[in-house]
Amino acid sequence: MHLISYDISNDRLRLRAAKVLMEHGLYRIQMSVFMGSMRDSVLKRLEKELSKMAQSTEWGHTDSFLVLPLHEYSEENANIIGNFLHNWDELRGNLHTLVL
Amino acid sequence: MHLISYDISNDRLRLRAAKVLMEHGLYRIQMSVFMGSMRDSVLKRLEKELSKMAQSTEWGHTDSFLVLPLHEYSEENANIIGNFLHNWDELRGNLHTLVL
Repeated sequence: MHLISYDISNDRLRLRAAKVLMEHGLYRIQMSVFMGSMRDSVLKRLEKELSKMAQSTEWGHTDSFLVLPLHEYSEENANIIGNFLHNWDELRGNLHTLVL
Repeated sequence: MHLISYDISNDRLRLRAAKVLMEHGLYRIQMSVFMGSMRDSVLKRLEKELSKMAQSTEWGHTDSFLVLPLHEYSEENANIIGNFLHNWDELRGNLHTLVL
């Protein structure tokens, strides 16, 4: 399972980033935070795509992607306050099914 | 080490959340993503504070905090594309110093 978050100032590029992340099977859990499980090959392709975006002329000098592989420890000890666009248990359930 | 991210629609509440997170020793690494190392007692106090915020009238029905404890595995395998407001190695170094 991975968490990917971004800070992108350009509206068009930010929209494209969200689209690319969701096309690679990630769930949008907050406006700029995505989570999901990907096969290594898919992750590799995604990271290439994100790096390419960071080379574009629309990329701002303070823009960034954070790609964080999550350990089971994080999933089990997460604390969610308020409403997630996706239910955490559902998301975890889905991911565990995908992983099996 | 913890990652805390938020989705808060109200400007005033969002500013307050950022302030509270940084006052508890977290670094702002993206606009809505914070990271840092806290003693258990500090984390407990912070989580109480965030829960209180989620009870306020300014809290929106899609607003959320995600509090994610990070495993060393995540820190070691993070991929950062672009510029972080804080340098990752520096952040990790600081945190390791704090933890020791």
